[in-house]
Amino acid sequence: MIYRKLHKDQHCEARTGQIHLPHGNVDTPVFMPVGTNASVKAVRLEDLFSMGVQLILGNTYHLYLRPGMDVIQKFGGLHGFNNWNGNILTDSGGYQVFSLAPFRKVTNEGVEFRSHIDGSKHFLTPEKVVGIQEILNSDIQMVLDVCTEPGISHKSAREALEITTSWALRAKNSWETTTETYQGKLFGIVQGNFYEDLRARSAEELSALDLPGYAIGGLSVGEPFDQFQHYLAFTAPLLPGGKPRYLMGVGTPEYILEAIEHGIDMFDCVFPTRVARNGTLFTDHGRLVLKNQRYEYDTRPVSEHSPTAAYSRSYLRHLFKAGEMLGPMLASLHNLWFLKKLVEDSRRAIHENRFLEFKRSFLDLYSMGIPD
Amino acid sequence: MIYRKLHKDQHCEARTGQIHLPHGNVDTPVFMPVGTNASVKAVRLEDLFSMGVQLILGNTYHLYLRPGMDVIQKFGGLHGFNNWNGNILTDSGGYQVFSLAPFRKVTNEGVEFRSHIDGSKHFLTPEKVVGIQEILNSDIQMVLDVCTEPGISHKSAREALEITTSWALRAKNSWETTTETYQGKLFGIVQGNFYEDLRARSAEELSALDLPGYAIGGLSVGEPFDQFQHYLAFTAPLLPGGKPRYLMGVGTPEYILEAIEHGIDMFDCVFPTRVARNGTLFTDHGRLVLKNQRYEYDTRPVSEHSPTAAYSRSYLRHLFKAGEMLGPMLASLHNLWFLKKLVEDSRRAIHENRFLEFKRSFLDLYSMGIPD
Ligand SMILES: [Zn+2]
Ligand SMILES: [Zn+2]
Repeated sequence: MIYRKLHKDQHCEARTGQIHLPHGNVDTPVFMPVGTNASVKAVRLEDLFSMGVQLILGNTYHLYLRPGMDVIQKFGGLHGFNNWNGNILTDSGGYQVFSLAPFRKVTNEGVEFRSHIDGSKHFLTPEKVVGIQEILNSDIQMVLDVCTEPGISHKSAREALEITTSWALRAKNSWETTTETYQGKLFGIVQGNFYEDLRARSAEELSALDLPGYAIGGLSVGEPFDQFQHYLAFTAPLLPGGKPRYLMGVGTPEYILEAIEHGIDMFDCVFPTRVARNGTLFTDHGRLVLKNQRYEYDTRPVSEHSPTAAYSRSYLRHLFKAGEMLGPMLASLHNLWFLKKLVEDSRRAIHENRFLEFKRSFLDLYSMGIPD
Repeated sequence: MIYRKLHKDQHCEARTGQIHLPHGNVDTPVFMPVGTNASVKAVRLEDLFSMGVQLILGNTYHLYLRPGMDVIQKFGGLHGFNNWNGNILTDSGGYQVFSLAPFRKVTNEGVEFRSHIDGSKHFLTPEKVVGIQEILNSDIQMVLDVCTEPGISHKSAREALEITTSWALRAKNSWETTTETYQGKLFGIVQGNFYEDLRARSAEELSALDLPGYAIGGLSVGEPFDQFQHYLAFTAPLLPGGKPRYLMGVGTPEYILEAIEHGIDMFDCVFPTRVARNGTLFTDHGRLVLKNQRYEYDTRPVSEHSPTAAYSRSYLRHLFKAGEMLGPMLASLHNLWFLKKLVEDSRRAIHENRFLEFKRSFLDLYSMGIPD
C-alpha cells in the first residue's frame, strides 16, 4: 500500500493522507504542477522545491517525441534530465494522442499516430508505454487508455472502455516484469464517458486489477459544471478507498474544491500556468487580470503572502504591457503558490472537520471580485 | 569625487577602482546588465543581487513612454517600482530617440520625436531629461546627447557635437538645481563620430564642465574592430583620469577586455541577454550554440561554476528546441554571470599587473572553439 489515510472529514468525503513514493512522501490533497516538456513553463524547479512542491507531472507523449527516450535514458530518467529531485507522475500519452496528434488509429493491439511536431508515424502499445515510463523513471506511471469526446454514442464509449480495460491488464502484466531498480507505481484510469453504467463497469473492472492507485479520466473536458459535479460524485466513490484517487485535468479553485469534497487526492492541469502567461492571477477575491487599466497605479501586491509580494500590481501590469518575460515568470510562480496554499488550507480544514464550511467561505469570497 | 582608483596595471591603462553611489559602492571595471523596461529580460533581479551585481541600467526613453513618469513617481522612483535595491544608471534616451523613433527633429532647444509604441509626439530637452531621471531616482544619470551614424560628414558631426556640448552645460545647470533628496550623479557623453579632432574637442569641452563621470558614445556602433580599437585608444586618455570612464554599448568579452586595457571602468550592452534568448552562451572556449546537434546527448554543464551548472547542455538544448521559456531564463543568467566573472578576473589580474597576459590567454582560449 502506497497510500495512508490520515483523516476523513466527518461531513463529507474529503480526506487527508500521504502517498509514499520513491522520491519522498506526498501530502494529499495535492495539486501537481504540469511540466509537459520536462519544464514547468516559465518556472525554475528549485523555486517549486523551496515552495514545498513534492510531486510534478510530465507528459510521456511530448517527452517520447522530444527529446526522445535515447536522450533521457542517458540521464537515467527524467529526474537526472531536468534536475528535479521530488516525485514525478507521467501520464500515458493517451490524452495527448487523442487531442494533439493530427492522425491516430486505435486497434486492440495499440494506437498508431502521427507526431504533431514533425508528422512522423509512431505506434504505442500499453506494454511499450510502461517501458517508456520505466525509462523516464516515473514515480507514478499511468496506463495507456482510450480517451473519448463528450457526446459519443454508448456503443462507442463502451468499445473504448473495453479496450481501456484490456490495455490496463496488459500494462499491469508488463509493469510487474519491470526491473527491480524501477520502483514506480502504476495507476489505472477509469473511463466510460458520460454514461453511468460504463463508469461503474470501468471502475469495477479496473479495481479488480488491484493497481496501486486510480485516476478518473474523461471528466473536466469542457462539460457544464453540474454535469462535471454529477459524474464526479458518481464515480469517485467507485474507486478503492484505500488507494490514491486522482482526477485528471483539474486546476481551478472551484473544480479542485469540488474534487476534494468528493474524496479526490490528486489533481493536475496546465490552466494555472497557461492563464498566468496571459496575466491572469488567482487571488482570494477571484481572478485578477493584470492588463486591466485599474491596476496602472496600484502599488499593492497581488497577494501579501505570495512569493511575488515584493512586486506591485502596477509593476506586474507593466511587465505584461511591455512584453517582458518576467511577467509570465512571476505570474506562473504566483498561481502555483496559490493552488499550493489552497490544498494546504483544505488539509487543515479537513483535519478540523470543517471542509464544507471552508469551501463555502472560500468560494463566497472568490466570487466577490477584486475590491478597490 | 565619486571615484577612487585602487590600482593601475603597470603595463597598460587598465585600472581597478570603486564608484561611490547612493545605493552602495560599485567595484570597477564593471559590466552593467541592461534592464530596458525596468526588467533585465528573463532574469529575476534577486538572482543578480545574489550574484553580486551592484549596478544595472535602465532606459529613460522606454520608461518615459511606458509605464510613464506618473506611474514611477508613485513609487518614488525606479528602485521602488522594480524592487531593485542596488544602483541604477539610466541613459538619457538620446541613443533610443535616434535609433528607435520613427521620426525625430533636432533643434538647439531639444529633440522632437514620435513614440515607437503608439506614434505619439514628444519633445525632450536636456533640462527635461534631467528631471525625468530625477524622478527615476537614477544613481547615475546621463546627459541628453545627439547621436550620429558612422559615415556622416565632418560638418554634420561637428554640428551634432556642438549641440551635445551646449546640452551638457544646460543639463549640468539643471542637475545642480535638483532637490537635495536626489543624490544621483550626472555623466557627460563624449561624441565626435569617427573624427579625431571632434573627439578631442568634445572631450575637452565636456571635461571643462567638471561632471562626476564621463562616457564615450558613438563607438561600438557597427564599425570594424580595428576602427573601434583606434578610436577607443584615442578617446579614452582624453577623459579625466580621476573620474569613472564609461564605454557605452559594449558587451562581448573581446570588446570588454579591449576597453579595460584602455582604462575604461564601465560597460553595458543588451548583447549578452539577447543572444542568450537565442541559445548562445559565453564560455571560456568561445560561444556555445545550444541548438547545435552535437549537444543532443551532452551530459556536461555549459560551465562548471555557472549558476546553471546543475543543468546539462542536452537539457538546455532541449528547452530551446521545445520553445520552453526556461531556456532563455537560464541562458540569460549564465551570460550575465560569465561577464561578471570576466570583470572580476580582470580586476584580479590588474591588481597583479598581469592584465595584458590575462587578456591574451583568455582570448587565446576563447578563440579555440568548444572542445569535444
Ligand atoms: Zn486529523
Ligand atoms: Zn593593487
